[in-house]
Amino acid sequence: MNHIQPKLTLVGAGPGDPDLITLKAVKTLHSADVVLYDALANTALLDHAPSSALKIYVGKRAGQHSQQQQEINKMIVGYAKTMGHVVRLKGGDPYVFGRGHEELEYAQQQGIPAFYVPGISSATSVAGLAGIPLTKRGINESFWVITGTLKDGSLAKDLHLAAQSSATIVILMGLKKLDQIVHLFLGQRGKEEPLAIIQNGSLDHSNCLISTLGGIMDAPTLNEIAAPAIIVIGKVVNEKREMVYSKLDEQGIFERNV
Amino acid sequence: MNHIQPKLTLVGAGPGDPDLITLKAVKTLHSADVVLYDALANTALLDHAPSSALKIYVGKRAGQHSQQQQEINKMIVGYAKTMGHVVRLKGGDPYVFGRGHEELEYAQQQGIPAFYVPGISSATSVAGLAGIPLTKRGINESFWVITGTLKDGSLAKDLHLAAQSSATIVILMGLKKLDQIVHLFLGQRGKEEPLAIIQNGSLDHSNCLISTLGGIMDAPTLNEIAAPAIIVIGKVVNEKREMVYSKLDEQGIFERNV
Repeated sequence: MNHIQPKLTLVGAGPGDPDLITLKAVKTLHSADVVLYDALANTALLDHAPSSALKIYVGKRAGQHSQQQQEINKMIVGYAKTMGHVVRLKGGDPYVFGRGHEELEYAQQQGIPAFYVPGISSATSVAGLAGIPLTKRGINESFWVITGTLKDGSLAKDLHLAAQSSATIVILMGLKKLDQIVHLFLGQRGKEEPLAIIQNGSLDHSNCLISTLGGIMDAPTLNEIAAPAIIVIGKVVNEKREMVYSKLDEQGIFERNV
Repeated sequence: MNHIQPKLTLVGAGPGDPDLITLKAVKTLHSADVVLYDALANTALLDHAPSSALKIYVGKRAGQHSQQQQEINKMIVGYAKTMGHVVRLKGGDPYVFGRGHEELEYAQQQGIPAFYVPGISSATSVAGLAGIPLTKRGINESFWVITGTLKDGSLAKDLHLAAQSSATIVILMGLKKLDQIVHLFLGQRGKEEPLAIIQNGSLDHSNCLISTLGGIMDAPTLNEIAAPAIIVIGKVVNEKREMVYSKLDEQGIFERNV
């Protein structure tokens, strides 16, 4: 007899490269009966789930047709009750602008035990993957992660304070508001303040544009960058080192010397 | 003949639980000739390196005897030249207050190819593991990660701006300055502002204290919290949900229904 034990695990899928998921996430996927994944989760990760598990795309991305959050919440609970372990696989980390807590809360309120396996957020990894440290001794003492666009389309208010600080600013979902963001920061940090825009930071086809607040809007390659991308503003951008990342495996650098 | 190919990979070890390391980090450790690890990296992770690899503790922790950064830099280069692939295993993420970039820079300047594998920082995972979302729609639009203590022992200046914002504030290495930090935030956010202090967030013996700016200094269990711990200030603390984490495996919740 099949005794269903409903449960939900929110799992962070990491910033894109399927190897940037945790061992715990892989173990969790092994025990999935249903995987609900979004647009930012690498679909190669679905192979960690049993072939018998249901794998359902519930992605949302700005400007695309989206299923509503309430519908996803109901799917989680419905599948948990009928199938067992629902893994909610979300790009990056479920708790960094991921609305993961809303899903966990809803499931718990419906009596479903719910758990969380953190993932690597693009907010904290993509700059480093491009050779830019989020923090460097003597240069800055903090970093501030902000969503560029609020639900009502306005610019996040914290951006005004962020501009005044010495923090490295990491802006997610800000590309559409780039001109407004640059204008705001120009007033506080000046046109020489360096800035980076990074798309697909952990993947083969990553794209990193380095400029300044004064120069970015006229950068000839700006139109080659597409969302989702992160914007990094701060003096640490000047510390950028060249780093090869995506081709590591091809070049065999992880091969051990013998 | 043994042809040495010197290289350095900075690897994030995650927030403590040895399962919260990435697949990429594990693959990197597989190819290590030397592992230099610090106090915050879980030593269980050393088992991913070959038994023949040298494993050397180079940990630094506030108040303990520490080897100097310059010495670590020289060890990296020396071992890379004589042994091959040096993996620098650092707790959390090497680029989040980890001084990873200084090591990478030094190695590159000495002609050693250097790479980076991000890890899960405690800054972005420990709150979630305690059931507290870093961000929640309608409550906040950003989070700010700050080191509590600067090299000269002073309070980070960005904390003054942080107090004025609506950001969730995550303070690392701030426990010793808790009274000063609380005093600073009280002036801007008031005594009802909730706060959490979390020690060993991803381990069995984790400890989470929930209070308010007005109440924390008199909390009877405050003296049970020891460094390293993170301080989280913001309204999201009120959204805390109960979550079981560390005992997941023992309870078999990752077992699949059959």
